Amino acid sequence: MIMREINPLLTLVGAGPGDPELISLKGIRAIRQADVILYDALINEELLDYAKAGCTKIYVGKRAERLSTSQDQINQLIVDYAQTHGHVVRLKGGDPFVFGRGGEEIDFARSHGIPTQVVPGISSSTGLTALQQIPTTHRGISESYWVITGSTRAGELSKDLKQAVQTDATVIVLMGYARLNQIVHLYTAHGKDKLPIAVIQNGSLPNEQLVIGRVEDILEKAAQQGVGAPAIIVLGEVVAKHAAFHELNSALKDIPVFHE
Amino acid sequence: MIMREINPLLTLVGAGPGDPELISLKGIRAIRQADVILYDALINEELLDYAKAGCTKIYVGKRAERLSTSQDQINQLIVDYAQTHGHVVRLKGGDPFVFGRGGEEIDFARSHGIPTQVVPGISSSTGLTALQQIPTTHRGISESYWVITGSTRAGELSKDLKQAVQTDATVIVLMGYARLNQIVHLYTAHGKDKLPIAVIQNGSLPNEQLVIGRVEDILEKAAQQGVGAPAIIVLGEVVAKHAAFHELNSALKDIPVFHE
Repeated sequence: MIMREINPLLTLVGAGPGDPELISLKGIRAIRQADVILYDALINEELLDYAKAGCTKIYVGKRAERLSTSQDQINQLIVDYAQTHGHVVRLKGGDPFVFGRGGEEIDFARSHGIPTQVVPGISSSTGLTALQQIPTTHRGISESYWVITGSTRAGELSKDLKQAVQTDATVIVLMGYARLNQIVHLYTAHGKDKLPIAVIQNGSLPNEQLVIGRVEDILEKAAQQGVGAPAIIVLGEVVAKHAAFHELNSALKDIPVFHE
Repeated sequence: MIMREINPLLTLVGAGPGDPELISLKGIRAIRQADVILYDALINEELLDYAKAGCTKIYVGKRAERLSTSQDQINQLIVDYAQTHGHVVRLKGGDPFVFGRGGEEIDFARSHGIPTQVVPGISSSTGLTALQQIPTTHRGISESYWVITGSTRAGELSKDLKQAVQTDATVIVLMGYARLNQIVHLYTAHGKDKLPIAVIQNGSLPNEQLVIGRVEDILEKAAQQGVGAPAIIVLGEVVAKHAAFHELNSALKDIPVFHE
């Protein structure tokens, strides 16, 4: 009879915003050490190739619309696999603690006496803006950035967004594309219809799409380009630092003035 | 005579919050391809070992107190080296666009016709909190987080912080340890003296120090532990999710009640 000692452990790992090269070295190391990997819908499967032979890989993908039941199941899977297999890596898109429900997974594992650790990831909020060369902060333009969920439990715009519109912070909305209409309405009501705004769909992936404009024209532009979820929304004067924003303005200036 | 074609290029690379394993695979790839690396004070020099033979490595470290003159010099170094050597990697702590003045470096390079690209990094704001297993957001507790500089041009608290204290956002102050006193005063004036708060010094490094408490006692605790800069400050109910916060409260409960 062969006995194997089981040392239960949960490691939450942030895989970054999509491009498999945006995970950290520490994240790769955790994947290599995993006995079980539970991975999300937005995880690039190339990352699973780093796992050791015999590692159990389980897809637990879920969409924002039906989180509540399946989160309980994921919590239970984490505990069950940690107790029977040892080291469970929970591989999540972006950073595990930025709207990732990582806190709930940690709570549940701890309540079952399972040690926990976290490997941070590049959040889509700063990662996708950086790839597009939109600075989240910039001296003389923005002293802060505010990252807000677009998908609240109540199904409404976050009350935080209603406060954010009244500040000079760069505002980044994650999982909020379905509410772009409401966001435009909110900003317009606060006289911010000229504020630069960007929508980045499938950021860092080969099918990335960027729409850039001002609050007043972003809905039309997004519709023209056929953009959809998953996408992040960036609102603030820093968006005007994007190279395409200047081309946009130059193009407008190039339109000859009509003389009668 | 040997001719070598020079292709000027600037890549801003975020190295993450300190631990050299928290850089991304893409960041390592950029370092490997660099002809010149200009690196900051908080960069772990182990990362330079990934550079190819013959790569020129230049320390351009600077401290927050005397940014204004040396930033111009760094901008000029970027352009000069790109034009004479080719691919310049600007290796910066955290994410290059989170208070990293990356936007200014991009602007200057572009104004000299040098192509630019950015490799995002894990920002200290979310990275160091995640390593401490403090969720930046948590369902039912926080729907957003707001990252604010503690070091403004005017030398005062950011006006954004004065708005942030009035919200339920998790607030993360970077480069603000020197103003912890003012921050405590601000939060106390808004009736938030019981709010959980954490200070993380040298986060992700072997000499990391954590101080955790409430607004009303954090100054005393930080002084007792001898904490100093560089440190990040985290304010919000999510801080109570830290394991030590519960021990703290349990320890208080364990103090026997004195009966006369």
